[in-house]
Amino acid sequence: MNTPTSAPGTPAALDPTFANLHNDTFLRACLRLATPHTPLWLMRQAGRYLPEYCATRAKAGSFMALATNRDYATEVTLQPLDRYPLDAAILFSDILTVPDAMGLGLSFAAGEGPRFAHAVRDEAAVAKLEVPDMAKLQYVFDAVSSIRKALTQDGKGRVPLIGFSGSPWTLACYMVEGAGSDDYRLVKTMLYSRPDLMHRILSINANSVAAYLNAQIDAGAQAVMVFDSWGGVLADGAFQEFSLAYTARVLAQLKRHGPNGETIPRIVFTKGGGLWLQDMGELDCEVLGLDWTVNLTRARALVGGTDRRPGKALQGNIDPNVLFAPPAAIQIEVAKVLDSFGKPHLGSGTGPTHIFNLGHGISQYTPPEHVAALVEAVHSHSKMLRR
Amino acid sequence: MNTPTSAPGTPAALDPTFANLHNDTFLRACLRLATPHTPLWLMRQAGRYLPEYCATRAKAGSFMALATNRDYATEVTLQPLDRYPLDAAILFSDILTVPDAMGLGLSFAAGEGPRFAHAVRDEAAVAKLEVPDMAKLQYVFDAVSSIRKALTQDGKGRVPLIGFSGSPWTLACYMVEGAGSDDYRLVKTMLYSRPDLMHRILSINANSVAAYLNAQIDAGAQAVMVFDSWGGVLADGAFQEFSLAYTARVLAQLKRHGPNGETIPRIVFTKGGGLWLQDMGELDCEVLGLDWTVNLTRARALVGGTDRRPGKALQGNIDPNVLFAPPAAIQIEVAKVLDSFGKPHLGSGTGPTHIFNLGHGISQYTPPEHVAALVEAVHSHSKMLRR
Repeated sequence: MNTPTSAPGTPAALDPTFANLHNDTFLRACLRLATPHTPLWLMRQAGRYLPEYCATRAKAGSFMALATNRDYATEVTLQPLDRYPLDAAILFSDILTVPDAMGLGLSFAAGEGPRFAHAVRDEAAVAKLEVPDMAKLQYVFDAVSSIRKALTQDGKGRVPLIGFSGSPWTLACYMVEGAGSDDYRLVKTMLYSRPDLMHRILSINANSVAAYLNAQIDAGAQAVMVFDSWGGVLADGAFQEFSLAYTARVLAQLKRHGPNGETIPRIVFTKGGGLWLQDMGELDCEVLGLDWTVNLTRARALVGGTDRRPGKALQGNIDPNVLFAPPAAIQIEVAKVLDSFGKPHLGSGTGPTHIFNLGHGISQYTPPEHVAALVEAVHSHSKMLRR
Repeated sequence: MNTPTSAPGTPAALDPTFANLHNDTFLRACLRLATPHTPLWLMRQAGRYLPEYCATRAKAGSFMALATNRDYATEVTLQPLDRYPLDAAILFSDILTVPDAMGLGLSFAAGEGPRFAHAVRDEAAVAKLEVPDMAKLQYVFDAVSSIRKALTQDGKGRVPLIGFSGSPWTLACYMVEGAGSDDYRLVKTMLYSRPDLMHRILSINANSVAAYLNAQIDAGAQAVMVFDSWGGVLADGAFQEFSLAYTARVLAQLKRHGPNGETIPRIVFTKGGGLWLQDMGELDCEVLGLDWTVNLTRARALVGGTDRRPGKALQGNIDPNVLFAPPAAIQIEVAKVLDSFGKPHLGSGTGPTHIFNLGHGISQYTPPEHVAALVEAVHSHSKMLRR
């Protein structure tokens, strides 16, 4: 599963995965191939910390109006790329589009998080759940196609486009709680009291997420990521049964190739999942995302493989709060993260690779010029490590 | 450091640690000595889930009026012991008494968490900080003495009394943020931008916490616990530098013995600290607290020692949300936790031991009769494991 479509040494130009890209570093790193620098992108890189994003959102009127409009979604997806030399774009959308399409009624009250009009809290509500008609999510697939087109320059994509979804467990948290939660009391009450209902929700979610990501791949997503944002709140044992097993079910159903035969790398990120890294190393995916609590040296030794042994590419993991420090301090922290991953893989075959990212979404209070300092530090320090 | 004052085999009655207790199972387990059942207590066992607690709090008028009054604090500390056969009492107080004594002005608005009138956010505020006069915390030490007295029956304590404090880092979080936080942005901004200021705060906090816990020991606390509730939000590397190092400084200053020569076990609990268990295994303390994300089999292998090798007693770690499930499900989850720790230590010397607890404070919404089911399940299943 970690083998790129082209044999090691095959010129990248012949592999459809890389052929039509100006900057293929992100995809190469996903597939454990050497790159001239450590590629980076930032979770929630299109967002409120950018004044241009706020302007577009104001035009749209609401978060949902922004997310469901192809043109607005395209506009905001490209904004961070126009400011910073990031190595990947990520679809602008929300992790809760799938339960919304199930009819739960997603809304975002001003200044608050997401909320569902119809939380799923009893047997009757669970019985009504079904894999949604993907036509209801056409606005997402249209956005993917539109973004791919907008990313094209001189007949080639500037950078690859990542599609994504919430994980089955993370979607279930919101579906049962009806909103964000501090203690996950309602969803865990169901999990411990009625595991049968929880398994039914998760099973429907897994099939829904798989169909959703496959449609994003068909529409042009060049990599897909599963955000298990709340996997880390589960107890050991419960995580494996209620989160990991259903992420695995999603992965098993995903298309391995895009419309032109490109290899589509699959990324799994469990926030707070560092203790279960060895379990996650067994997943049928190419990349594991890590938050800032994880030591990259240890993670690489555990699941990163070697030049001779397969493994996962690792993505992460600087604390987003580092971006509140002045640029000189940001440089130091960036170097710590890159150095902790260690010696870059340089050969022509596969080997351990690192994709730089935050360990969680960027804060809305982040000074945009500090992001520029971070991006510059990642590129320059990681080039230096390759000399 | 893991050796009890009495040599293995010495009758417990001769050791002042155990001499005056009806139920010494908690202290024995802290010192890695065998017990007839797995002792248990519950973080926040005196609290809002108990109607009798709510009644006392209503009488007191406010949380601070309750916590600062010796008689009320004594009354609520004993309430859970009168309902359930718990194996330890814990001082009713708040982790933020120390910064309050520093003059930061602690208050609890109705329905909200703690808040400081004077947050510590700049160089001037940091410069003003000092180890508080312990006389300002006399109400805590008076409560400790009063509770010890109230626990006495027929000249012996019913169960041992645990004293506690927030860790230097956890106190710093509240002192800088001024209240609870979702993202720890302010405290981490200081940490990354002005590590010198952060180190000064932590250094003062470490000396304050040590003096505070020593005074609790003098007043009669029979074990002390450091709650590093927010250590888990730190990045790898930052945790070791800004949390663990200062917890170690506290431990280095703590009295090893109480007024009558009793050994005083020291417990350290870092919520979300499972990834750093090996680092925590190096701490000069007797017990490590664990949250529900940690696999007890692995934790025991890593830091629990053996019958021949020293190690830490382990405390924890059931998900408090299990208490929302019906009693039959609670029994199953209790058995899972006890079984995952594994075979109890039965010999006359030291060996791996387990103190059952929640992985975090009990929720205010917990049905009190479910707590009874949990306590009964821990005692009966752990006795069965010893047969």
